[in-house]
Amino acid sequence: MEGKGAYDRHSLAQHSAGRFGIPVLERALAGLVVPTERRSPLLVADFGAAGGRNELGPMSIAVGALRARAADTPIVVVHTDIPTNDFSTLFETVEHSPDTYLHTPGVYPLAAGRSFYEQILPPESVTLGWSAIAVHWLSRVPTPIPEHVYSSFATGDVRAAFSAQSASDWDAFLRARAVELRDGAALVVVGGAASDDGAPGAEALMDALDRALRRARDAGAITADEYLHMNVPTWNRTLAEFSAPFASGAAATRAGLRLEEHSLAEVPDAYLAAFREDGDAAGFADSVTAFLRAFTEPSLFESLDRPPSERASLAGDVYADVRGRLLADPAAHETVWRVALLRITRSPR
Amino acid sequence: MEGKGAYDRHSLAQHSAGRFGIPVLERALAGLVVPTERRSPLLVADFGAAGGRNELGPMSIAVGALRARAADTPIVVVHTDIPTNDFSTLFETVEHSPDTYLHTPGVYPLAAGRSFYEQILPPESVTLGWSAIAVHWLSRVPTPIPEHVYSSFATGDVRAAFSAQSASDWDAFLRARAVELRDGAALVVVGGAASDDGAPGAEALMDALDRALRRARDAGAITADEYLHMNVPTWNRTLAEFSAPFASGAAATRAGLRLEEHSLAEVPDAYLAAFREDGDAAGFADSVTAFLRAFTEPSLFESLDRPPSERASLAGDVYADVRGRLLADPAAHETVWRVALLRITRSPR
Repeated sequence: MEGKGAYDRHSLAQHSAGRFGIPVLERALAGLVVPTERRSPLLVADFGAAGGRNELGPMSIAVGALRARAADTPIVVVHTDIPTNDFSTLFETVEHSPDTYLHTPGVYPLAAGRSFYEQILPPESVTLGWSAIAVHWLSRVPTPIPEHVYSSFATGDVRAAFSAQSASDWDAFLRARAVELRDGAALVVVGGAASDDGAPGAEALMDALDRALRRARDAGAITADEYLHMNVPTWNRTLAEFSAPFASGAAATRAGLRLEEHSLAEVPDAYLAAFREDGDAAGFADSVTAFLRAFTEPSLFESLDRPPSERASLAGDVYADVRGRLLADPAAHETVWRVALLRITRSPR
Repeated sequence: MEGKGAYDRHSLAQHSAGRFGIPVLERALAGLVVPTERRSPLLVADFGAAGGRNELGPMSIAVGALRARAADTPIVVVHTDIPTNDFSTLFETVEHSPDTYLHTPGVYPLAAGRSFYEQILPPESVTLGWSAIAVHWLSRVPTPIPEHVYSSFATGDVRAAFSAQSASDWDAFLRARAVELRDGAALVVVGGAASDDGAPGAEALMDALDRALRRARDAGAITADEYLHMNVPTWNRTLAEFSAPFASGAAATRAGLRLEEHSLAEVPDAYLAAFREDGDAAGFADSVTAFLRAFTEPSLFESLDRPPSERASLAGDVYADVRGRLLADPAAHETVWRVALLRITRSPR
């Protein structure tokens, strides 16, 4: 991530998408087995927290509901992300944001710096799990994508490799959670998704990014090899892909998880709606470019074997090019992200 | 802290000092009440972790001893520091260092981004606490120190203000731990200390730093007001100051803590010993400057109201000046840090 809070400042779309999960979270809380007889803390886990801003709403709802049912039990909230995440922004946000869930008494925020494709927390320790707009990030890039940076444009063997990596990662995520969740615990996943035909809804935007990068390559600013290895390592799963491990005899089912509900939602383009209200194309282009840059620049530019100043300058040029494309035709770059809403429970052992 | 692992790379003295606490830690572990009947995890807390490198040895000893007495109980290690700490380095170090305590099975590392002068963890949750070379950092600068950057040179009212801040912070630290520790739990503190006359043993080194800063001020490179507000906000306590809250009726005693043992140790100057072996004055000057810079630059330069490039350039000049002083006379800058070794237990409630 870009660091210093940039992801948080430019994650309106992720924020909106996470909100789609609130009714599912509320149903999960209503059905939850809350062990009130124990003095040991109730553990809530937030898998893939980034800077934390988008987690405050759901976590406030979760700790509020748990506090109502267990007046004196301490609640520990563990925010997880990979070690390179900006944990300082995360901690500052949780401590100092007016929207913090720390208004509920007896709540203790912690963090874990480990990929959620591994076990992070002790067995049978988690009462509620939450993950919003995070599981589309793959654990690794299975293969370069020739002629594009975004996996939804991949075809043939390359597409198959991404699909297989996605299936393997999703199985690993679920198996790890099955170990961590207590009997009767719930896990809500708001997952970056794709419609049944595999379209995440951001094709035009990601293609504008790719066109800008190819122009930089064709102009010699970046090499053909650098372009080949540039990649946003995500895969937006279809509902069928999200559901597959819950089939009879499949990985999640064997591990003790049940898929209680699953649905697909479309996230309207808030930036384009604003442009249609106010006609401010420059504002649209600025906002969408900042949003795009916050979640793609680290993957695309940080691994370039060049001095930081050169990387920053290249990235500046590429995103300026993207901004120009957005400015010229906002409507052509409408982005309607799909999100999957999953409610999962842990069956008794 | 300087970030990107600089503190970890240049914290040999802190590392050596922490090692003095190992026998105390082993006595604490031997006397510990370990609740093996519960399935809930054993919690070990490391207060003031910085980049984590200096914590791996003590934490390996702690989790090894707990695992020997509770074969199947998960162990959670929570590393705490202020939100601006470099948690990415901390997590990377714990995950990937060959010296990690994760060789012991069933151990889960977490972090907390909150000052240890507040409660961080749930009541009665901590089985073992550890803090090495951290409690000399004050929660705030009580008052500027005219004509020096280091509190051990303060006199009169300024000295009294630092001493009072130190007493208040130490009380707050102990009261917070008294809430968090389980009955029978232990807390080991290796504290940056001073001999009975108030000398931390780093006077010559800190004076070299101050002289370099005053030269920069007198040359007009930094303003008189900037110099006045430059401060390394630490206070190295005497053993009497460390012990005071444990007197009958004092804060820690009232909160349920007992001081089981306390002693003062001197940490020999490893850098000067190396110089006396190899005669490499430049190596001595480089190492000691890097050590000094890692723990003083953030406090002194990050709050200057100037562009980052200007701050970096000023800091570069000042530490180059310090290096020259060290190079000219290594023996005159011998640094023999004092550390207090405290073993504290939580009395039954």
